[in-house]
Amino acid sequence: MKKYSAKNLHSFSYKIFKSIGCVDEEAKLASDVLISADLRGVDSHGVARLSGYIRLYEKDRLNPNPNIRIIHETPSTAAIDGDRGLGLVVAPKAMEIAIEKAKKVGSGWVAIKNSNHFGIAGYHAMMALPHDMIGLSMTNASPLVAPTFSKERLLGTNPIAEAIPADKQPPYVADFATTTAANGKLEILQRKNEETPLGWIQNAEGQDSTNPNELKNGGALLPLGSNRDHGSHKGYCLGSIVDILSAVLSGANFGPWAPPFVSFLPMPEDPVGDGLGHFLGTWRIDAFRPKEEFKKNMDIWIERFRKAKTTDNQERVFIPGDPEREFELDRREKGIPILDKVIQDLTELGDRMGIPFPH
Amino acid sequence: MKKYSAKNLHSFSYKIFKSIGCVDEEAKLASDVLISADLRGVDSHGVARLSGYIRLYEKDRLNPNPNIRIIHETPSTAAIDGDRGLGLVVAPKAMEIAIEKAKKVGSGWVAIKNSNHFGIAGYHAMMALPHDMIGLSMTNASPLVAPTFSKERLLGTNPIAEAIPADKQPPYVADFATTTAANGKLEILQRKNEETPLGWIQNAEGQDSTNPNELKNGGALLPLGSNRDHGSHKGYCLGSIVDILSAVLSGANFGPWAPPFVSFLPMPEDPVGDGLGHFLGTWRIDAFRPKEEFKKNMDIWIERFRKAKTTDNQERVFIPGDPEREFELDRREKGIPILDKVIQDLTELGDRMGIPFPH
Repeated sequence: MKKYSAKNLHSFSYKIFKSIGCVDEEAKLASDVLISADLRGVDSHGVARLSGYIRLYEKDRLNPNPNIRIIHETPSTAAIDGDRGLGLVVAPKAMEIAIEKAKKVGSGWVAIKNSNHFGIAGYHAMMALPHDMIGLSMTNASPLVAPTFSKERLLGTNPIAEAIPADKQPPYVADFATTTAANGKLEILQRKNEETPLGWIQNAEGQDSTNPNELKNGGALLPLGSNRDHGSHKGYCLGSIVDILSAVLSGANFGPWAPPFVSFLPMPEDPVGDGLGHFLGTWRIDAFRPKEEFKKNMDIWIERFRKAKTTDNQERVFIPGDPEREFELDRREKGIPILDKVIQDLTELGDRMGIPFPH
Repeated sequence: MKKYSAKNLHSFSYKIFKSIGCVDEEAKLASDVLISADLRGVDSHGVARLSGYIRLYEKDRLNPNPNIRIIHETPSTAAIDGDRGLGLVVAPKAMEIAIEKAKKVGSGWVAIKNSNHFGIAGYHAMMALPHDMIGLSMTNASPLVAPTFSKERLLGTNPIAEAIPADKQPPYVADFATTTAANGKLEILQRKNEETPLGWIQNAEGQDSTNPNELKNGGALLPLGSNRDHGSHKGYCLGSIVDILSAVLSGANFGPWAPPFVSFLPMPEDPVGDGLGHFLGTWRIDAFRPKEEFKKNMDIWIERFRKAKTTDNQERVFIPGDPEREFELDRREKGIPILDKVIQDLTELGDRMGIPFPH
């Protein structure tokens, strides 16, 4: 696999977003979010998705110059209309509003409608860290997930991210889909023509399957827990809470009406709201206790869990955020590996937009 | 199994709490929380636990007359010291504070330290419903859960509850442990001498087990997801987020230092904080959008999910809160079934406290 510097990928992404009419600052911000996924090892959410965002623009589902505005607010909350902008831009701008509110009244919460796919959830949650705040980020997504006992796809992989600062230790950063496996993992197995473990997906009839291509034939991803005996009703709860906070509370399309990002799903008919929804927010740590005390306790927490005795054949117990941080250290130094198939896709995209992909 | 009216069980519980010195209002409130678990079918968290709370009192871990007070606050947040009170009393009183803050500034959040076991998480979250707010409730708990790849027990079953109002439909109420199976389910299998499904627990060496008694021999419950391939690192994230918000943010004992409720675990040495911790809060719906619009959309959400096509052999797709509400309707009418073993335990408790258990 060929490797690229973050700088080169960022520059390409920036030029692509500029070419569809994004203003300078927003083309840069969208590229920051995208490349942060590549750096953190979340390859499915980085430049590999760039052509997907451009496809939304070409289908007139994306406004490159959105007027992102507050519709309604209280001291600790705001409802925001993303004006069909890139979620990559709408979400961080909305998170800034939440952070400003938390500075004033201790916590800040924004429900966003009329947006699009917002990239990695972790980016937006981590914006809270330099302010000594705890960040929370979630979004609804393409309907590909069947609730427990259902053969219909009514939810997205609806991720949750939470970022929590520490003192000498690096921050705690959890960022996960509320399904057994994220869609990106399935795409990797599809490319390799390999089977999934049992418990990741079901076919269109709701039966267990290990064929990753079932998703393109009406099959569904399963909620975290895989089946009722192993707690899939809890994964269904998590996915539906994310859906309701992101889309019902904001006035976006919820459940099976979520506008899909994946190209193999049609736009749902009879929308029940505006665009896709996100829910972001933050608690200021010293709104509860002195931040120095909290951060020292987080160090104790992290050190205790990191040194936990491991099960056989395992070298370490991970702190959420460890793997991504290690990816970033490595990739900033050695470059970001990009799959041949993705290079080809980006080269074609560049040719079409008159922006050569760096080789 | 003999059945008892909610009224009779409440009266017994009330007298028991009065007998250890709780004031009238708090003995009543604690009994409300306890009996609501029995009514909602969460038998493990109802009167079956009454002797456990009294055991805490007898071990001088419980203050029957706590001075529950705000240590620090901002317009949308408060840190609360539970003064070693019953969590059954501390949590609902803290939730009232969160609700008052949300009335004023749109949302309200309370982190509570120096508390004890708070009963069912759902009760406290549901307190938000009559105010047209979304309620959130979580707590840390007895360290019985091993993080992914660990053979040490560093977390509790750390439940999350979320309650969301609807219009004509009953409210959405999710209430779940962040493990594959709650400890209560294990206790049932222990009594019956039956095996657990694979993926619920591991033995003290961190190996897969199906013996529910392993928990008493150093074994551990597994995070939601069961193993790494099926997303247990996500269950570990959820459990640890609950631990950090409930206990690190409040200044309570976190991780393996959480004071245990179960009698077979010793009190941890060298505490890192005060008592057990909870985290409760609420968003006011009309702090985001008109509540009538929101509640009508919740009806659409609930109706769409409830009528989802089912997989083979399943009759219906449940909305979170459906089973518990149906239990409550049935048990209010026909009484609450209590296991012989629990009747015996309550009879002995009553004899000891001079309060006859009704027969």
